[in-house]
Amino acid sequence: MISRHIKIVAIVVLLSGVVTLKAQDSEKTIISAIYQNALTGYEAYNNLNELCTKAPGRLVGSKASERAIQLLKTQVEKYRPDTVYLQNYTTPSWRCKSKSSAVLNYGSKKDLLHVVNLGLSVSTPDKGITGEILEVHTLAALDSLGIAGVKDKIVFFNRPMDNSCLNTFEAYVGAIDQRAHGASKASQYGAAGAIVRSLATEPDDYPHTGVSRYMEGVKKIPNLSISTNDAEKLSSINKQNKSVTVRIKSDTETLDTVHTSNIIAEIRGSLHPEKIILIGAHIDAWFNTPGAQDDGAGCEQMIDVFRIFRQLNIKPVNTIRLVLFMDEEMYQSGSDVYAAFVGKEKKEHIVSIESDAGGLLPLGFGIDGEDPVISSVQKLTVQLASYGIFKTSKGYGGTDIEPLKQFGIPLIGLTTNSQRYFEYHHSANDTFDKVSRREMQLGTAAIASLVYLIDKNGVK
Amino acid sequence: MISRHIKIVAIVVLLSGVVTLKAQDSEKTIISAIYQNALTGYEAYNNLNELCTKAPGRLVGSKASERAIQLLKTQVEKYRPDTVYLQNYTTPSWRCKSKSSAVLNYGSKKDLLHVVNLGLSVSTPDKGITGEILEVHTLAALDSLGIAGVKDKIVFFNRPMDNSCLNTFEAYVGAIDQRAHGASKASQYGAAGAIVRSLATEPDDYPHTGVSRYMEGVKKIPNLSISTNDAEKLSSINKQNKSVTVRIKSDTETLDTVHTSNIIAEIRGSLHPEKIILIGAHIDAWFNTPGAQDDGAGCEQMIDVFRIFRQLNIKPVNTIRLVLFMDEEMYQSGSDVYAAFVGKEKKEHIVSIESDAGGLLPLGFGIDGEDPVISSVQKLTVQLASYGIFKTSKGYGGTDIEPLKQFGIPLIGLTTNSQRYFEYHHSANDTFDKVSRREMQLGTAAIASLVYLIDKNGVK
Repeated sequence: MISRHIKIVAIVVLLSGVVTLKAQDSEKTIISAIYQNALTGYEAYNNLNELCTKAPGRLVGSKASERAIQLLKTQVEKYRPDTVYLQNYTTPSWRCKSKSSAVLNYGSKKDLLHVVNLGLSVSTPDKGITGEILEVHTLAALDSLGIAGVKDKIVFFNRPMDNSCLNTFEAYVGAIDQRAHGASKASQYGAAGAIVRSLATEPDDYPHTGVSRYMEGVKKIPNLSISTNDAEKLSSINKQNKSVTVRIKSDTETLDTVHTSNIIAEIRGSLHPEKIILIGAHIDAWFNTPGAQDDGAGCEQMIDVFRIFRQLNIKPVNTIRLVLFMDEEMYQSGSDVYAAFVGKEKKEHIVSIESDAGGLLPLGFGIDGEDPVISSVQKLTVQLASYGIFKTSKGYGGTDIEPLKQFGIPLIGLTTNSQRYFEYHHSANDTFDKVSRREMQLGTAAIASLVYLIDKNGVK
Repeated sequence: MISRHIKIVAIVVLLSGVVTLKAQDSEKTIISAIYQNALTGYEAYNNLNELCTKAPGRLVGSKASERAIQLLKTQVEKYRPDTVYLQNYTTPSWRCKSKSSAVLNYGSKKDLLHVVNLGLSVSTPDKGITGEILEVHTLAALDSLGIAGVKDKIVFFNRPMDNSCLNTFEAYVGAIDQRAHGASKASQYGAAGAIVRSLATEPDDYPHTGVSRYMEGVKKIPNLSISTNDAEKLSSINKQNKSVTVRIKSDTETLDTVHTSNIIAEIRGSLHPEKIILIGAHIDAWFNTPGAQDDGAGCEQMIDVFRIFRQLNIKPVNTIRLVLFMDEEMYQSGSDVYAAFVGKEKKEHIVSIESDAGGLLPLGFGIDGEDPVISSVQKLTVQLASYGIFKTSKGYGGTDIEPLKQFGIPLIGLTTNSQRYFEYHHSANDTFDKVSRREMQLGTAAIASLVYLIDKNGVK
């Protein structure tokens, strides 16, 4: 579309240039200025390109994560925060030393599968391990099969995400037990290894990784993720052939101690510098991905809130504190370190807001807090409805801010259009070009507007 | 995100298989079944892939348009309509015989620019035409310059789309006068040719085409579109250098008569076969693009409404008529032929619904009709709010259905998330891989649900 339109067109004179806000400007005027500034801004998008290009695979403790910390700190500094510093700490870590592989053997044929290590997976011996494929769709199926049915097998967990869920995060939660606990459960019955169908909504060739934890006391067995296309292929070959075996190789190591950091920056409050509105996202991304949506976009949105406040000369009454967390993906060590800091610091956090659902079209906010806070935030965001923010309700805050709940701090998470998210999540497909600048910037504007409204009106 | 989640995960048993609907099922049950069916369906998406692969550049009268007509007809036939036929007609057409070019000359340097013919542009002589660049931002600027300032120049219209608009279609309408009328206006003052900045929201290297019409009586001059990146480059070079010239080449032809068709198919109404609910989209796409969002997705959504009705065994009371229109992009000849047919046929159209805003996240419907119809459709769609359909109001129907307004037929257009649309529109970037299956299928589900609700409840 739309060609008939051209018959009736008026010339629009564009008013460009700098918007100057005044103290007496209405909330409506300021929110409109925030949206205009965000939608016409390219810096956050260019910053994201820089992050994805220079520091892909920035898992905690990696060289890439060190580059990401320096690079993001430099980006924040451009917008003249009153303070910016690194919150240094040490943590265990894990890394994938070289690419994993899976070679299928059936009849006289061989096939190379698209696989990747799941997070925290142990190594195989150099020559790999070989086992017969056992396909299951639930962890409970292993209980029925018992040791006799599982021993020495490579268990293939192949239950798809349920595409009939409207919200793909629900489908994710509905399938994640396979990735999180599958290997441990299989090991209890003597399995040699595990292969898990990628947690992805669409048929594609990208294996999607993610964390998997071994239960205490079980033997740790190698644990891979397979692309959805190859999961279908493997299942089909396994049905049509007798004794299908697979040889898997995995080359990883755990690291006892790595030195790393969260990044903290503040625009100090003019009236209540001791009261904090926290905005956060996470720096790290899996070893196999540029991490554009997860969570490069979140970091750049939050940094851009600082740019917008400075550029529009919005002076907050309370302190706006930006926290870019390290290690959301594996141990949430940055989140725990920050929570411990809050416990000692004893400064009031009015709210904490996280962006970790991708730089996709924002639809609202999820609020994890007391009812009066929820209804208060709902009331504040009514005036964002005309900008497409129509879904603000009780919901999920965010992984990094979750420990702040113990201090009674309300948690708020940006809710985005989830339809595309699991095409990208934790895979090599989570690239910069999949982010729409305007969608990401609408998220930035929604967060900046909410920060402004909470700063001005409080949440109780 | 979200790794902490894996600590508390329940095993979800998936209920798959065929949903069987009964006559007494509630609207809520049927709408839920429609959404589930759409979200788990891959046929429309695969059909779109086939269309984009086998019939890109399907401008009216082209070989590709003939392939598209046959291919889409075959796709519709799979879903067992009660009738399907081609509405054949003849129309003038236009084609681009070979790629256009623009070579910039300044100082001792040459630069090749990313350009493409605008629709209906005339040819240059084989060796091209050369002229000095004159950059303007409004058509009115030419009035001030007059013949003395414009004669023999190549006028470069370089006003960008206004990115501060929340809805990108508004920004499009605000800039389209340059593409639609720029060349004619420039010609009136003796210009040799025109180059128009692409109507695109983002900086990129894709020239975006679209229709441009010559005013009666003016000399037709060659008319090209330039990518946004090269528009910036050209502007900058032109400011920094004296006497910047460009040599443009264009090789096109107008065709007096081509034979072409609309596709019409029906699921006949069980009670009122003579009353029609029209669902439509357009077959054609510009010569330079696979036309995935514009409007391949619309065609496949409407075909998929038939699949869903058949698969769920929904038997409409009124006739559901699918019309796939030819030639939306240039002359709207298919639309006019269908409107003339309606004038003769004298069957009541309850409503006409068009999908021509891309297979992007659906947000609501725009309604062009009497107030009671608008409020009636708004009431019906209240129960689609939980599926994200929250914006149903007075608005735009669609280019192809617009002539039906003369018969008092209400026009309804699917409203989608417009943020990404003008990254793709009318350019080689409008490819299949940019369409998210789930977003497209949510649009299908919204339309199928609305058709079902209107069929059952009427609109008055």
